[in-house]
Amino acid sequence: MEGKEEDVKLGANKFSERQPIGMAAQDKDYKEPPPPPLLDFGELKSWSFYRAGIAEFVATFLFLYISILTVMGVVQNESRCATVGIQGIAWSFGGMIFALVYCTAGISGGHINPAVTFGLFLARKLSLIRAVFYIIMQCLGAICGAGVVKGFQKHVYEINGGGANVVNSGYSNGGALGAEIMGTFILVYTVFSATDAKRKARDSHVPILAPLPIGFAVFLVHLATIPITGTGINPARSLGAAIIYNRDHAWDDQWIFWVGPGIGAILAAVYHQVVIRALPFKSRS
Amino acid sequence: MEGKEEDVKLGANKFSERQPIGMAAQDKDYKEPPPPPLLDFGELKSWSFYRAGIAEFVATFLFLYISILTVMGVVQNESRCATVGIQGIAWSFGGMIFALVYCTAGISGGHINPAVTFGLFLARKLSLIRAVFYIIMQCLGAICGAGVVKGFQKHVYEINGGGANVVNSGYSNGGALGAEIMGTFILVYTVFSATDAKRKARDSHVPILAPLPIGFAVFLVHLATIPITGTGINPARSLGAAIIYNRDHAWDDQWIFWVGPGIGAILAAVYHQVVIRALPFKSRS
Amino acid sequence: MEGKEEDVKLGANKFSERQPIGMAAQDKDYKEPPPPPLLDFGELKSWSFYRAGIAEFVATFLFLYISILTVMGVVQNESRCATVGIQGIAWSFGGMIFALVYCTAGISGGHINPAVTFGLFLARKLSLIRAVFYIIMQCLGAICGAGVVKGFQKHVYEINGGGANVVNSGYSNGGALGAEIMGTFILVYTVFSATDAKRKARDSHVPILAPLPIGFAVFLVHLATIPITGTGINPARSLGAAIIYNRDHAWDDQWIFWVGPGIGAILAAVYHQVVIRALPFKSRS
Amino acid sequence: MEGKEEDVKLGANKFSERQPIGMAAQDKDYKEPPPPPLLDFGELKSWSFYRAGIAEFVATFLFLYISILTVMGVVQNESRCATVGIQGIAWSFGGMIFALVYCTAGISGGHINPAVTFGLFLARKLSLIRAVFYIIMQCLGAICGAGVVKGFQKHVYEINGGGANVVNSGYSNGGALGAEIMGTFILVYTVFSATDAKRKARDSHVPILAPLPIGFAVFLVHLATIPITGTGINPARSLGAAIIYNRDHAWDDQWIFWVGPGIGAILAAVYHQVVIRALPFKSRS
Repeated sequence: MEGKEEDVKLGANKFSERQPIGMAAQDKDYKEPPPPPLLDFGELKSWSFYRAGIAEFVATFLFLYISILTVMGVVQNESRCATVGIQGIAWSFGGMIFALVYCTAGISGGHINPAVTFGLFLARKLSLIRAVFYIIMQCLGAICGAGVVKGFQKHVYEINGGGANVVNSGYSNGGALGAEIMGTFILVYTVFSATDAKRKARDSHVPILAPLPIGFAVFLVHLATIPITGTGINPARSLGAAIIYNRDHAWDDQWIFWVGPGIGAILAAVYHQVVIRALPFKSRS
Repeated sequence: MEGKEEDVKLGANKFSERQPIGMAAQDKDYKEPPPPPLLDFGELKSWSFYRAGIAEFVATFLFLYISILTVMGVVQNESRCATVGIQGIAWSFGGMIFALVYCTAGISGGHINPAVTFGLFLARKLSLIRAVFYIIMQCLGAICGAGVVKGFQKHVYEINGGGANVVNSGYSNGGALGAEIMGTFILVYTVFSATDAKRKARDSHVPILAPLPIGFAVFLVHLATIPITGTGINPARSLGAAIIYNRDHAWDDQWIFWVGPGIGAILAAVYHQVVIRALPFKSRS
Repeated sequence: MEGKEEDVKLGANKFSERQPIGMAAQDKDYKEPPPPPLLDFGELKSWSFYRAGIAEFVATFLFLYISILTVMGVVQNESRCATVGIQGIAWSFGGMIFALVYCTAGISGGHINPAVTFGLFLARKLSLIRAVFYIIMQCLGAICGAGVVKGFQKHVYEINGGGANVVNSGYSNGGALGAEIMGTFILVYTVFSATDAKRKARDSHVPILAPLPIGFAVFLVHLATIPITGTGINPARSLGAAIIYNRDHAWDDQWIFWVGPGIGAILAAVYHQVVIRALPFKSRS
Repeated sequence: MEGKEEDVKLGANKFSERQPIGMAAQDKDYKEPPPPPLLDFGELKSWSFYRAGIAEFVATFLFLYISILTVMGVVQNESRCATVGIQGIAWSFGGMIFALVYCTAGISGGHINPAVTFGLFLARKLSLIRAVFYIIMQCLGAICGAGVVKGFQKHVYEINGGGANVVNSGYSNGGALGAEIMGTFILVYTVFSATDAKRKARDSHVPILAPLPIGFAVFLVHLATIPITGTGINPARSLGAAIIYNRDHAWDDQWIFWVGPGIGAILAAVYHQVVIRALPFKSRS
């Protein structure tokens, strides 16, 4: 019995993490939990709150470290054939999200992306305080991750674009914005579908595969939109690379990688809540 | 208890979706449900019927958006090495099917392909009304998805074939038709095997992996037949790209990508019902 | 109740298939079933026996169709970069085994390879009659699969090696034999580990992933030994391609692709039964 | 009942393997087992102890055989395009770890890497005797695996670097050491997260996917750091290749591939025990 209660409880952790990705609410008699309050300062006293933030920081740090390092390995070589190639870059981004969501799902919910945090906040899955805290930690982690990559080869990093997201020639800003909106919609829609609480309640086996489609969504969007912008769909990733690279043309396009994912996350939240869950219809009944 | 009944019930949803891919019929004492009636106008009054159609539309839209955009990124570049390559295209088609089947299995069954809908209809897994509705929504979604890709770079799209399926030089129409039949057989056979209701009844853990072999089947058929036709095995995908590309030589071969998948789906349904399930033998006993 | 008994029982199917890959023996109080008799003519009267043979035929047919067609698509193009590449060939072989084992596990056990059948026969998992029947059906399926590929482009097939296994220049016959022994050992060892009955009894969730490591084993061996022999580790695959290609130098090396896998399967069976299961020690106690 | 007890018990196996990767502790009322004693000579009398060592030997042997053979196939060809490519090498290392962890998890815990053994030892998951025994068997297996690859083509092996880890030009020793520390941290952190006993206790379905993120972690680190050192993050792999290759410049850098993984494993163990499990806080309460 002591084993069951051994979770960390240094402070008042009144509202447990809702819908951690990959964790099953095992009870079949599922009843939707009430949404957390918008502002709940009690969270600030619990160790699991800070632990979740640290986990988001570390995960985003590792995410940018591996993915930007892979990008550098590919772009610094004149022959793409002698590298893991553009496809390898897509695997790097998608695979890291798979592995990291798997590892951090039980600790923080495994967001590793401000757009995911924003989308889940819109659906009232976490409080405003927690959402802001996560996004700050994600951005800090991303800056550190890109910084470590620059540390390996400063000169090579700077002459090869530093893995920063920019609108490539041949594409308009509007096209790039559209690509970011669509790509983030696919990612956040997959997150909602794979972690849907009702689905988990009906079939407890579903969530264990959740990190896999989420990672694949990231991989697939990269396959399609690397030629357009290098693929953002994660404002922390775009910000971290831009800050460390710090050239004008990276900053000029930066707004696209915040506005696009923001709109994509809103659309995904609306689609899931209105069409799939049909919440407006139910409130009328 | 309110939580258990919260499914959308605006109309009379008398016949629930049968065999949604990836969902387990958890009860071991499995009894095959009677097939739905061929025409059931009661379905037309249920919100979950329209929701399923919307989900098929959105999924097929996203499927073509990502896959055709990936094709464009590869074919517009003179050096395949500087792109995700032909293998990346195969991953794009197969991976999207994996992720989308995972996401929509609980809503519509996750067909995303008129050939799959047709095959499951032949096995009496869904009503005629639902089958026709799904196929229309899939085709509309595919047209929109290809249209968005053309919107990014109209000129590039048109001079690079627009991701439309055509019989490549070196192959006969008969060969292309055969490749479509075989490829669709593999896909629909995998769908039948992975979602077999008896199998699910025996072992409730089987279905959670169902989207994975189905996605892999699509990936594998693309690996093999991209050199022949670019690989259809999905009439909605072929129609959508042809309508948006709209050149004569794309329309000339269009029949192959409807007749081939149709025959493939029939063969898969016959193989599964006659050989694997042995229905003719049982009806005599 | 009728639903539970609806399995095909036209004849006396006294000995059910033991250890079908991917199916769980759900009861925890696991007791090793007695091995089937070496010769059991009762099997010959059961429909499920013939159905299993048909499933092996169809699966091996599809396996060679997709994999040899992928090989042809790669080798006929002067630039490997404009194809799915050698890595795509490896995915094709491994991915098909994953998908087909998943589909046929509940019908025939999902062998699709005489070396696997031979290894499981050595461990007394199936009767001699069933083993011989499976191997014959696998070889017939492989011949038909390669034949269909030749039908697409007869000339291209013949001048590009026809996907037949031969010892490549730079490697000795002894090296090729060693590579086949090692490769088959890895595959059959993975089959034994992933479908181990005791493991399934301890943890019923293990087997649902079984087709994945088995498919990966095939993929990985191809990554390593395609440069040496094109990779056999499946005598039916080697025989089918050789018969359809039918040139002297394919036949000269054919023995390697039967002796190698045979020895590899024996070693894997011995390793699993003696070291992992420790059967000799137990019989003494 | 005899079936339940049939595990090999030739000697006194007083302390069962703790937290075998991929095996679920099914009981929900989880109580952390006491750590094994640092020195327990009773283990030396149990057959399962030696069996675990043999399994580690065989797995590390197969790991190096396939991965180094894949490396040789790529580097000996002037055109990377005509091989499985650098990305294929990354799949080879990561895929083998996935398949081998899956196969040996129930026998030895599936370490196949002295850094993993060291990390789990620091967290008191296995005794000192077992840790030392595993590391010795892993190193012996690695030497044999690399030796077999050299046996195929001695000359080709020697002029192409033998798959040994060295610091590539353009990178400093400090950068290589950092890359090894980070890479091993990611791997061991994933091992801890995926096999966390508390997590398994909460959700028994989690561990069945454990080999997949662990294999992906190895794949992803290779994608990123092959350009730097060829990627070690496994001292047995680095030692085995160095001994068989046996040139001065391979030995000069060898310390990096022991010190780096050692530090990475320590950091991962500290992060998991202190931050995630919060053990220091609990011991105070």
